[in-house]
Amino acid sequence: MEKSAIYHQPCSSYAYPYDRETMHLKVRTKKDDVQSVTLIYGDPYENVKIEERYQWINKQVNMKKVAQTDLHDYWFISVKPPYRRLQYAFVLIDSSGTSIFYGDRGLLANNQDTYSVPDNFFKFPYIHEVDLFQTPEWVKSTVWYQIFPERFDNGDPERSPSHVLPWGSKDPDRDDFFGGDLQGIINRLDYLEDLGISGIYLNPIFKSPTNHKYDTLDYYTIDPHFGDKELFRTLVQEAHKRGIRIMLDAVFNHIGSKSKQWQDVIDNEDQSIYKDWFHIHSFPVRDGENGNIDGLSTLSYDAFGFTTTMPKLNTANPEVQKYLLDIATYWIREFDIDGWRLDVANEVDHAFWKKFHHAVLKEKADLYIVGEIWHNAWNWLQGDEFHSVMNYPLTKSIINFFLEDKIDGKQLIGNLNEHFMKYSQNVNEAAFNLLDSHDTARILTLADGDKQKVKQALAFLFSQSGSPCIYYGTEVGLDGANDPLCRKCMIWDEGKQDRDMLLFTKHLIRLRKDYQEILSKGEMHWIDLDRPSLVAFRRELKQQTLTFVFNHGDHEAVVQLGEVGSCTDIWRDEIYEARTVTVPAQAFSVLLQENPK
Amino acid sequence: MEKSAIYHQPCSSYAYPYDRETMHLKVRTKKDDVQSVTLIYGDPYENVKIEERYQWINKQVNMKKVAQTDLHDYWFISVKPPYRRLQYAFVLIDSSGTSIFYGDRGLLANNQDTYSVPDNFFKFPYIHEVDLFQTPEWVKSTVWYQIFPERFDNGDPERSPSHVLPWGSKDPDRDDFFGGDLQGIINRLDYLEDLGISGIYLNPIFKSPTNHKYDTLDYYTIDPHFGDKELFRTLVQEAHKRGIRIMLDAVFNHIGSKSKQWQDVIDNEDQSIYKDWFHIHSFPVRDGENGNIDGLSTLSYDAFGFTTTMPKLNTANPEVQKYLLDIATYWIREFDIDGWRLDVANEVDHAFWKKFHHAVLKEKADLYIVGEIWHNAWNWLQGDEFHSVMNYPLTKSIINFFLEDKIDGKQLIGNLNEHFMKYSQNVNEAAFNLLDSHDTARILTLADGDKQKVKQALAFLFSQSGSPCIYYGTEVGLDGANDPLCRKCMIWDEGKQDRDMLLFTKHLIRLRKDYQEILSKGEMHWIDLDRPSLVAFRRELKQQTLTFVFNHGDHEAVVQLGEVGSCTDIWRDEIYEARTVTVPAQAFSVLLQENPK
Repeated sequence: MEKSAIYHQPCSSYAYPYDRETMHLKVRTKKDDVQSVTLIYGDPYENVKIEERYQWINKQVNMKKVAQTDLHDYWFISVKPPYRRLQYAFVLIDSSGTSIFYGDRGLLANNQDTYSVPDNFFKFPYIHEVDLFQTPEWVKSTVWYQIFPERFDNGDPERSPSHVLPWGSKDPDRDDFFGGDLQGIINRLDYLEDLGISGIYLNPIFKSPTNHKYDTLDYYTIDPHFGDKELFRTLVQEAHKRGIRIMLDAVFNHIGSKSKQWQDVIDNEDQSIYKDWFHIHSFPVRDGENGNIDGLSTLSYDAFGFTTTMPKLNTANPEVQKYLLDIATYWIREFDIDGWRLDVANEVDHAFWKKFHHAVLKEKADLYIVGEIWHNAWNWLQGDEFHSVMNYPLTKSIINFFLEDKIDGKQLIGNLNEHFMKYSQNVNEAAFNLLDSHDTARILTLADGDKQKVKQALAFLFSQSGSPCIYYGTEVGLDGANDPLCRKCMIWDEGKQDRDMLLFTKHLIRLRKDYQEILSKGEMHWIDLDRPSLVAFRRELKQQTLTFVFNHGDHEAVVQLGEVGSCTDIWRDEIYEARTVTVPAQAFSVLLQENPK
Repeated sequence: MEKSAIYHQPCSSYAYPYDRETMHLKVRTKKDDVQSVTLIYGDPYENVKIEERYQWINKQVNMKKVAQTDLHDYWFISVKPPYRRLQYAFVLIDSSGTSIFYGDRGLLANNQDTYSVPDNFFKFPYIHEVDLFQTPEWVKSTVWYQIFPERFDNGDPERSPSHVLPWGSKDPDRDDFFGGDLQGIINRLDYLEDLGISGIYLNPIFKSPTNHKYDTLDYYTIDPHFGDKELFRTLVQEAHKRGIRIMLDAVFNHIGSKSKQWQDVIDNEDQSIYKDWFHIHSFPVRDGENGNIDGLSTLSYDAFGFTTTMPKLNTANPEVQKYLLDIATYWIREFDIDGWRLDVANEVDHAFWKKFHHAVLKEKADLYIVGEIWHNAWNWLQGDEFHSVMNYPLTKSIINFFLEDKIDGKQLIGNLNEHFMKYSQNVNEAAFNLLDSHDTARILTLADGDKQKVKQALAFLFSQSGSPCIYYGTEVGLDGANDPLCRKCMIWDEGKQDRDMLLFTKHLIRLRKDYQEILSKGEMHWIDLDRPSLVAFRRELKQQTLTFVFNHGDHEAVVQLGEVGSCTDIWRDEIYEARTVTVPAQAFSVLLQENPK
């Protein structure tokens, strides 16, 4: 047994309460090294007196190998501690029959001496509801649609900036304006309802000099080129009427340099009442002086990156906290928004996000909080900060396999398993899953224009736990490389829209809705087909199993699925009696089977 | 290279800010498997344009192998990120020259393609002072003395319970009273000052029917058998005059069944205004009814274990929170106590402890918070809950080697390394280190009366980072097996005191004080002597090195210490010129050497 590879961490993504009664436990071993893992568990205080000696009451249950990566196996079990307290350890056995005990004091001999010492066991001391990671239930059944407002639709040309360009007249450069606005979005709500989406994530809409508006000038004003508060209220109300929720973008890591606060610091330097709102190392902070050249590391204050238009806010300052939390609750209270997406969330302090979590959920108990974090975000996903992060590591794995052909199916599965295992199931069920955004190249471009690949990638995204997000225009074949090209104008000319892709997207959203519960919470079982271009898995929940088979190869694949008897291809609406399924090249099948009761 | 053993977790005890400017990074590999580890690091946004391409500015530095366990090597480095943000990865090389890159996307090929993708690197997004793990500076130089008040001294016989037993007249049974009180402690403050200790940890002193008082009846009343508030005020003031701090025991997981709150629930059942103060599954909760038999798992409410006298408080209830936080701040505000030790801290919710942390530190910024947690406590030691826990895993390792001869020196070092590596250096520097307590057998009993072993164990405890605690009576040879025998009356009859042990203890405390900084913060370097009964290490800080050599064997040991030239044995006050040191059987040496500048 490769002892050095064995890993468990108590009170972590390896041991967490899934709900008030249920604990999830995981342990990691070297790939193909351990034959079985048994969990020994019980209440730490429950003993029975047998012949004058106290004996601990415990149960032993086999864990299931649920995931394999390039290097590791992951073993999992869900148990219900009888009195909310859990004392537990693992017994690992390899193929030679060697067994070992693994608990809080490390790897020990698997014998009664070891069992007799309570300190040798791991503990989960008590399941507290208040410490649970809980997410709004509606998120799990939501299909998101991300809108970059300046490029979605120009619904009110009178509001457009003076230097506005004709809609879609050119590929966007960094500083172009095309006149997209809130009226444009309102006008297209019927379109979005027909498409089937149930949540809109809007890039920033507060007043700012740029087209992206990540350099906020005033958090209490809708950018006048976009509209005003009444129009925004209408947007939320009209969206809600259609069952569509609205998530706004909160840019709290930094403020725009044109804000009154930063302008005051520029003017009054260390006499400014706002000087402690920032992280200033020396004055002056004016552009061009004291090393303050945009993009250079010589800035005399902290900023987003080294961007002079985005001075970093000091969120440890109680005045700044009050200012930002008032803003966060204002837009909920007054306009009934449903979510906040938090820009550059990882660079803001944890203490602030805990206050934010408390304040916004007090205002609206089922508000969704999504942090922009591209890396391992476990520390922000403990239940008292974010409900989710933008799930870019998932994005990357899907792109690597389906769009860029950089990895094979086995690697895709390994990478995804590794990623899912980093988090709790609660986190994975409410993840904000996306393939592209205003910060990345679009999927059609990454696929070199190959629509079949884009369709597979989308279908795969929709087959996973979490709520999928479509970046505006994907459904009509919008392409574009990295920023600024990923922010092209939405195509509204039906003659120029990819109508096939639109039908595909609607179909996919329909399927997601019809099988929402199983896609959200169903157990995931990968099927080993041992062919590099095939990826297949089952999602199981209660009486139903959905089997997905993705054929990313250039030839039709006939796949033997032992478990599948009579079933329906719900994607193509065909009934199969055979135990094989034929999947066309660069396509996928979705099979529904009723499980025996 | 054994890839499956390689481990790092961002934003954890493997990657944390030590102070406002400094990051500590660790990576774990299989024992003796990897030859070198290089850290690549820089600011995530600092790029330089070279020939039309942006190149990330980074540094590469070698990490140091700082700890080895039975299974693993741990590599460590301390770096100062130039702009408070850190992007980093590890390059591991084995003896065959194979190299591998390790970052946020796992193990990757060590090449330019890998380096060119920022997402492949780990991130520590920004060092926020408000998120730092910070501890009161005074703790590091404190030597604690734990007093179980009912057994320390009977200073005012008039306060004693009617059924009081003559002092030390018998070994204690569970329900005995011997009359120890606060006046007794006040009377002995000169003794404690002379002993040299600088902090007293008092077991509970609030009103309760038992001798241990862990079933609080009223948190606002000093138990009348112990004294009253004025007397407690005097105790704190007199202690402070002598440079001795006072830490009280907060029993907030549960309340005593004689409290007015629980009595009200017994009387009024589901009509009680206190019914939501507890975790009640069904009424009645009266003893003997509805399965409520002490010790049985049939209790109809949650308790500490299954103890009917200790019903568990519902700390998620805002009324209970207010009640407990008012108590916590009251004793600070009115009596100026210096610390709270939190009973059964692991079974209370994190959300409550975060509020507790905030409330008590607002009242007194340098108050010390110590949780009673016997297992891996990393989740409570993130900076916003506890400063320390009772460090029982350290206890256990020292006992196993020095007192019970269950492990050899190499295993001791391995176990301690494993333990220290679970936490950050900040945590280890403020740890509450103990060898025994009211909850364990006493060390003299564990050593089967062998004083030499006890002395070695104490000296070893005092040689480690963290603040050591002596359980009352250890210094005069008090013995006792598990509770209730570990709670014997303190020996005040000088004829019965072990005076040699008293002198030893004073000497040890003196040494701890004289070399406090180096013992608290000095780097730890184990010296491999390859003899199972020897344990040796250096503590280094600035210009000084202390070398400890423990000879746990039954024969004098002549030890070759390559690095030690001219030095002083500060324990025996002898000067050595040789490169060898002779350590008597079951004894230890402490050598001081001035480092070359």
